[in-house]
Amino acid sequence: MPPTPRVVLDRARLQANVDRMAATAAERGQALRPHAKTHKCPQVAALQLAAGAVGLTVATLGEAEAFAEAGCGDLLIAYPVWWTSDQAWRAAELATRVRLAVGVDSVEGVQHLAELWQVPRGRTREPAAGPVALPELVVEVDSGHHRSGCAPQEARAVARAGIETGFVVRGLFTFPGHSYTPAGRREVVRQEADAVAEAARGLRAAGVPTPHVSGGSTPSVALEEAGFDELRPGVYVFGDAQQWELGTCAPQDIALTVHSTVVSHAGGRLVLDAGSKALGADRAGWATGFGRLLDHPGARIEVLSEHHAVAVLPDGEPLPPRGSVVRVVPNHVCNAVNLAEELLVADDGVVTERWPVAARGRNS
Amino acid sequence: MPPTPRVVLDRARLQANVDRMAATAAERGQALRPHAKTHKCPQVAALQLAAGAVGLTVATLGEAEAFAEAGCGDLLIAYPVWWTSDQAWRAAELATRVRLAVGVDSVEGVQHLAELWQVPRGRTREPAAGPVALPELVVEVDSGHHRSGCAPQEARAVARAGIETGFVVRGLFTFPGHSYTPAGRREVVRQEADAVAEAARGLRAAGVPTPHVSGGSTPSVALEEAGFDELRPGVYVFGDAQQWELGTCAPQDIALTVHSTVVSHAGGRLVLDAGSKALGADRAGWATGFGRLLDHPGARIEVLSEHHAVAVLPDGEPLPPRGSVVRVVPNHVCNAVNLAEELLVADDGVVTERWPVAARGRNS
Repeated sequence: MPPTPRVVLDRARLQANVDRMAATAAERGQALRPHAKTHKCPQVAALQLAAGAVGLTVATLGEAEAFAEAGCGDLLIAYPVWWTSDQAWRAAELATRVRLAVGVDSVEGVQHLAELWQVPRGRTREPAAGPVALPELVVEVDSGHHRSGCAPQEARAVARAGIETGFVVRGLFTFPGHSYTPAGRREVVRQEADAVAEAARGLRAAGVPTPHVSGGSTPSVALEEAGFDELRPGVYVFGDAQQWELGTCAPQDIALTVHSTVVSHAGGRLVLDAGSKALGADRAGWATGFGRLLDHPGARIEVLSEHHAVAVLPDGEPLPPRGSVVRVVPNHVCNAVNLAEELLVADDGVVTERWPVAARGRNS
Repeated sequence: MPPTPRVVLDRARLQANVDRMAATAAERGQALRPHAKTHKCPQVAALQLAAGAVGLTVATLGEAEAFAEAGCGDLLIAYPVWWTSDQAWRAAELATRVRLAVGVDSVEGVQHLAELWQVPRGRTREPAAGPVALPELVVEVDSGHHRSGCAPQEARAVARAGIETGFVVRGLFTFPGHSYTPAGRREVVRQEADAVAEAARGLRAAGVPTPHVSGGSTPSVALEEAGFDELRPGVYVFGDAQQWELGTCAPQDIALTVHSTVVSHAGGRLVLDAGSKALGADRAGWATGFGRLLDHPGARIEVLSEHHAVAVLPDGEPLPPRGSVVRVVPNHVCNAVNLAEELLVADDGVVTERWPVAARGRNS
């Protein structure tokens, strides 16, 4: 057993989370394409694919390469890519081996890809180093999160640019990130559905007869019943303190925790050896702390620095002794996993396997 | 040149920062022991040591091992360690090769180390695998930051426990982390000086005739003139958006930036491909955003997710075009560096060398 802080994954809870989401999607006849940026781990992806996922979502080309290497044959880079020539040719090589789609959110973004790949001038490569193929394009639509994505009424022009320059335009995707909020989730999903409906009309007008529609996030997925062919939740597979606070997972569903040693009782508080270099520093405005303790639901991490988490327990609750190990639930599990080299897989609390975080740090 | 996001280090600014801090310490007759958790990079450490640093500060045993491997012969683990037996013996092996000191902040912490190392029962190892030596102890004192560290009046008992169990107690250290604030820094330094003075009296009473006193942080170091034998700033070597906002570095001193591509103008804002997986998610309560742009001082990163930073520029300032590369200043450079595999070293804007972040992720 490596020393703390260490990332431990409860295999039974993980499998239950995988199965529950797969069943939801199957019942509703939706494809499930889980976002692999949460786990970055081939073994977790294999469980998702075995349970019926049609493929994986990734955020970067590097993640796509890592999961293709691990055997996944259908990948969506759900990001409005603006690549270098070298990245474009890496993607074109990858597209000969897997079914690949990439996001675009502007006419200029489409034109840039067309120039990089010399579409439609014969798809030749200069310098050529082997066979290449073109990914399909998927138009990113902003459904109210206001991060990236074109406005719904602009989707037609973006799709049109794709078709005119010789790409296959598969459809559209959106990320309802504003569903990460304690209230108003139903309204967010309504906005998302309206946005994709309008954008889908635009794509049909542009010449995509049956645009594929991909949406979803862990907090919103329970409500995305109509209008979506595909769902892309990520965090559901592990759960985290944000989802716990949003009520979209229960503490008994949280599969990943960071085991941390109590190193001090300074000031009558619990000082742990897991800081922002193990947990990540995420703290949404509505979050009640920098993370929580699975076995002390009333505790909150009130101070977080690189190698210290200072947790405050409710009045009267005794501090776990110095030297004991507690299970910390990070606020945002995607960033915590990206800080770890490996996940320790536990059966009934006993570590039986180690899974590498193979796509850790693959930001480009 | 690797694709964005990439971490680029301006060599001339780095050297100027190293030299400026070395000169400050030398003028005041204080030893400088820079905190290497900021850079985790042997090449940066070598510059600091060449400029007169007496050794390095680290946060973890893994960092200590990495820098010993890189040739540093004098290391302080400025952390109240609570180790496993395996870690204790790793440290005892390391102490045969370098001058090593470790932090303690409680009588129990001292007793735990004594038990692990079987002090004073002959310093034998079971199972023995080679020569071992004991690190010195340094008592951590809380000077008002209220993270770890004993209260000043408790330092005597902690030191006494160290001496009684057979350790060499070198002195004390404190981290005035509450100096990371826009106002009241002078008051913080006064608290720090009072705390270490009281703790030093305790150490003398416990039987440490001339306790060594180590303090300092990048925001406070300019004021720590009296009462400190040693200073341990870390961030000064690179600078970051926090120090820029605190006024403890100027933008023209910032040596490290994350180069990031403009991938979208969605919503009339600047969307960059450097998110929390490249920059870290740090945002102090007083920070004006999730990071800044070196060449657009009026811009603020208002939305940060894993692979997107959304920056807002002042009214009327034109957006840098899609596909252009901007220089992002992370809020907290220590966490940004810990996310990178390498630092690209630039001379006059041209990358001439790559330095590995050798101690990245060495959390234990």
